[in-house]
Order: sequence, then structure tokens, then C-alpha cells
Amino acid sequence: MSIITDSNNTAANTNTVLKNDLLLRALRGDTLSRPPVWMMRQAGRYLPEYMVLRRKYDFFTRCQTPELVCEITIQPVDIVGVDAAILFSDILVVPQAMGLEVLMEEGKGPSLPMPIKSIEDFSRITVPDVSDKLHYVMDAIKLTKQTLNGRVPLIGFAGAPFTLLCYMVQGKGSKTFDEAKSFCFTQPEAAHQLMQMITDTTIQYLIAQAKAGADVVQLFDSWSGLLSPADFEIFAMPYIKQIVEAVKPHCPVIVFAKGSWYALEDMAATGAGIGVDWCIKPALARKLVGANTTLQGNFDPAKLMLSPAEIKKEVNKMIDDFGIDKYIVNLGHGITPLIPVDNAKAFVDAVKEYGAKN
Amino acid sequence: MSIITDSNNTAANTNTVLKNDLLLRALRGDTLSRPPVWMMRQAGRYLPEYMVLRRKYDFFTRCQTPELVCEITIQPVDIVGVDAAILFSDILVVPQAMGLEVLMEEGKGPSLPMPIKSIEDFSRITVPDVSDKLHYVMDAIKLTKQTLNGRVPLIGFAGAPFTLLCYMVQGKGSKTFDEAKSFCFTQPEAAHQLMQMITDTTIQYLIAQAKAGADVVQLFDSWSGLLSPADFEIFAMPYIKQIVEAVKPHCPVIVFAKGSWYALEDMAATGAGIGVDWCIKPALARKLVGANTTLQGNFDPAKLMLSPAEIKKEVNKMIDDFGIDKYIVNLGHGITPLIPVDNAKAFVDAVKEYGAKN
Repeated sequence: MSIITDSNNTAANTNTVLKNDLLLRALRGDTLSRPPVWMMRQAGRYLPEYMVLRRKYDFFTRCQTPELVCEITIQPVDIVGVDAAILFSDILVVPQAMGLEVLMEEGKGPSLPMPIKSIEDFSRITVPDVSDKLHYVMDAIKLTKQTLNGRVPLIGFAGAPFTLLCYMVQGKGSKTFDEAKSFCFTQPEAAHQLMQMITDTTIQYLIAQAKAGADVVQLFDSWSGLLSPADFEIFAMPYIKQIVEAVKPHCPVIVFAKGSWYALEDMAATGAGIGVDWCIKPALARKLVGANTTLQGNFDPAKLMLSPAEIKKEVNKMIDDFGIDKYIVNLGHGITPLIPVDNAKAFVDAVKEYGAKN
Repeated sequence: MSIITDSNNTAANTNTVLKNDLLLRALRGDTLSRPPVWMMRQAGRYLPEYMVLRRKYDFFTRCQTPELVCEITIQPVDIVGVDAAILFSDILVVPQAMGLEVLMEEGKGPSLPMPIKSIEDFSRITVPDVSDKLHYVMDAIKLTKQTLNGRVPLIGFAGAPFTLLCYMVQGKGSKTFDEAKSFCFTQPEAAHQLMQMITDTTIQYLIAQAKAGADVVQLFDSWSGLLSPADFEIFAMPYIKQIVEAVKPHCPVIVFAKGSWYALEDMAATGAGIGVDWCIKPALARKLVGANTTLQGNFDPAKLMLSPAEIKKEVNKMIDDFGIDKYIVNLGHGITPLIPVDNAKAFVDAVKEYGAKN
């Protein structure tokens, strides 16, 4: 292929040269004219084009049909102009591949009718061969990479073991995941055995994503912030570390453990890029992760209800605070359904204009 | 009255001498043989005796009938042996007194059918005369103080302005309170005007509680952890400060802003005792609030599912970490319905035995 490129960098595991490789360069720590920008849940309900497909196909049809995944994944690149695509999928495809039934009723959140309650339930789960059970994800990655044709990098992802345990034990979403946490505290051996199975599956899964063409992968520990610092060290950190170490030789990894500001230093020591939410000041996040780690975040999604002009002002301030290098502009959590598309565009445009300004 | 007492201290605004004034002494910074202990939501659903009354009377009947409040408030003193009673009530009695309809359906959480959406809606609310609108709370405090007869101090409470705004704008519970936060960001003048009205009401309300006999009051900012450090300074801190400054001359105040670890230093500067959740290490909490502030917390309620023996081990470690003085043992959030009463007792007993051990 012969494409005019911004740099000589090529995406991992693909022959297509990336035209926009800002995300990879930010993760490497290169000096940039502006940071890259993408948004968690950017392929989601705030986009009318996504809503058309959501009304037409149920959740797992959308996840398991490579053509639909490809279309949904690329929508925000076309419409909002983000610097990276993130695969449309769900963290619960892993528990599903491990053998648990996962139901996804629109507007109700996920449910697992037969959750794990003790070690006896482990007879119902396995560490699957992901190339078999999750082949549809790799097929979707290949098709999406081909269709993107190097426009922007593609991000793959998985849920971190503690967060997946939360759903596999609690059986549904929760504000506190009390039952899942009590499972960890009262049956720690079972919890560790379960998280090791999830870890083994996730390592296979993320390496397979990288081999299929994912340029970067993100590990989401969405519920680790419900753990105390001491319990995070016991129940979250060891598995995050194993996964980052195993996957990093295959592609860059970003870890986003929402709410776990107290573990930023330990997480940064894995060599991953580190996502942060808006409940920490940029200067403190930088101090905790050190000078060599790329940070990602941390715009409060509720601020996307401001006017486009005000959003741009806030984004400028955020980039001023984080600095341009070793920084990826993102939200501190997923974009919510009520955000106007023009506001999401203003968020992205502000980052691009910041670059033009400098 | 002639009661044998541990010390010469008397509760504020009452002639009854407190037999157990550990809570007040911890808040004053006295040297103690052990810290006091109570539990957030200790008068609640984990107690079978409470469930009997819950099945018999609806929520507002329970809140508004002094005899029921008194009985429910004292139950955990009798059954679990805590060192303080906390008035059975709800933070939403304030929005109700200000003029908003509040519905409390069992098992469904609160709802406000006509929430505040803009400054136009302010015609529906006022800063009420709390001695009129909330006289039932003061009646309940007087009856409870009389019935307690000095056994333990009585804690009054109110919701902090940002948390009450969350409900008054969102109209129901939420994981993210996006609409409420967007209201603050997009209509900051209206938000500040609303929070000033809540503040004015709350100051009156907490002073009235102290005058009726509350020995200590706690201000709950249950949702302030959804704000960034910068937005906490704008939308939460000024109102917390106003309230603590106005109420402190009348009785000691404890501020518990769940999740807002980043504001511990500022909150401690108000002179209030400071509650913390389990997501911060005791040593860091102490460092942030300084040597002169009394800390309260921070046991993870999910750990109350451990065996009584393990609970005691964890409580001992927590007291070792916080130290005995300027410390109130508590949970880092409310006790949940499934906790066995014996486990709650083990939590309290561990603190009492810690004292005996030393």
C-alpha cells in the first residue's frame, strides 16, 4: 500500500501504515504538536446513527456481527473526528465465553441469571479457547482494520478481572457490588481462583486482539474504586499486572481503574498508559505516575452539556494542566446518551484547535 | 437528676448528664482508653426489630411520629451496644419542608415527581420556618433524649446542599447524577441560589436540632464524590463551610463527604470532625486533615460479612492504623440490609474489647 503518512510508524500486526498515529506516539512518549483525543463509549447511544442500528439489531447481534461492529466502531471517526476507533463490544463477552449466560436487555443493564456463588459453581466455567469462542471479535477487528485503512488506530479492550468478578458473582449491575466484594472477603481462595481464570482468558483474548490488528488495548477496571487501597493490592493489582506484562510485548496497553487514584503509582509501574477520572487533579495524577507514563482522561462527561464554546474553554484548560506530551485527551468515564453530537464534536475540535494554536 | 457518670461533661442543651460521652470527648480530642463506635444506618433494615416497624408503618409515618423515631433510634443502642444514637430520619425531609413533594416507595428509593429544572421552578420552593415545618423532628429529638436518659449521646443530621440539590434536580437516585451536575455547570447562578436556600434552611435546621437536644450533628455530602476537586471547591465546599461555621457554636459537627478525599484538608479547616470512606489509607487521611482533627470511619461495610472473629481482627487493625485518640470508629458508608446482627455486634464489641485490652 502506498499512503502518505504523518510519520514512519506502522501499526502493530498490520501492513497498513497509519495516517494518524498520534495515539501510538502519545503512548510512546513522543513530542507532539497536540495530544490525541478519543472518548470512552464514543460508539454509543448519543449518536443517532448508532440508535438506528440499536433499534434494528439486539445487543449480541450487534456485538457478534463483524459488519455491524465495523460500522458502529467507525461511526465516531466519521461523525465526531476522533483520533482513534475503539472496537464496539462489551466486557461481558468474556464471562459469556467462559460459560456463563449473559442477558443484555435494552435499558435494563446486563444480567447473569446463574452467577458464581462458591467454588462449586466453577464446574460451570472454563478458560476457553478464545480463538474459538470469541472468533467473532477477531473477525470484527480484521474487518474494521481493513475498512479503516489506516485512518486512525483501532483500540481493543477487555474488562479487568475484579470488574468481571463483580458481574459474575453479583449477577447484575450494582452501586456497591456488596455480594461480589463479600465473596472476595469471605471466600478469598475461590475469588483468586476465579480471577486467575479470568486473567488467563483475558491474556489470550487481548493478545488475539493485537494479532488480529488492534493497535492498542485498554483494560477497564470499572469497579475497582469500590475496593480499599489494601484490598485493591490483594484483589485487583496482581491481575492487572499479569495482564499488562503478558500483553505489552504485543501492543501498548492502557489501564483505566476508575476511582482507584490510590493505586496510580503501582499501576504506572506496569508500564501501561494510565486512565484517570475527573476526581483527581492533573498535577497530582502526574506526580503519582511519574514522568514516564502516558496519562489519559479526565473530562467530566456531565460537562459535555455545556455550550460548545464553554466546552472548548474547559478542554483548553485541561490540556494546559496535563501538558501536551505523554497525554491522551479523553473523558473520565463514558459519554452519556443525552449529550448532543455537536458538543462531542466541540470536545474533539477543541483538542485539534489546541494543536493548531501552538 | 443524679446519675453516676464517667466524667463531668454534660450534653449540650440538656440537663441530663451523659453516662457515656466518649463521642463528645473524641470530638474534643481528649485522651481516651478506646475510641467511641457507632455505625451509619445503624437504625436500619439489618435489624429484625426495625423490620417489624417498617412493615407496619410507611416511611413518613416512621419519620414523623416521635414515638416511632424514638423507638427506632434507640434500637441499635439496646441491641448492638453502640456509643451513640443517630436520629432516625432522612435527608429528604429538608427538600420536603422547602416545598417539594418527596415520595418514598419501599424498595424503590426516593422520588421527587416535580424536580427543579430551572430558576422558574424556584417559585415552588421557600426557605421554610423549620420550627413549623420540621417540628416533628425536634419533638422526636426531645422524646429520644428523654428516653435515652443520658445513656449515650444523640446525633442529629442533615444532607449537605450539593447532595440535596442532586435529588431536587435529578428527581430520583442515580449512579452519576448527570442531570443535577449539568444543572450546576450550565445554570451555575440558579444552582448557587438553590444551594444558598438549602444552606439557610439547613443552618436553621441543625441549630434547632442542637437546641432540641442533639449532642452532635453530622452533615452528609453523600454525592460530592461525583464532583472534580475544582467543582467541589465551587459547588460543595462553600456551603459546607457556611453550615459548619454557623452550627459549631451550638454543637460539634461531623462532615462526611463520601468520595471527596481530595477535599479533606479544606474540610478539616472548618473545625468539624471529618468522616472518611474506606478508599483512603488512615495514615493519608490523618496527614491531610492534620493533627487536630477528629477522624471518623472507615470500615468497608462489605467486610461485615466476614465471621465475627475476622471482623474483630480487621477492627483491631483499623484502630491500630487510626490510633485511639481523635478517632471515632464507624463504617465508611451505611450498613447494608443483609448484615447479620451478630456481625454488627462483633464490630462494636471489637472496639470495646480494644479498650479493655489496652
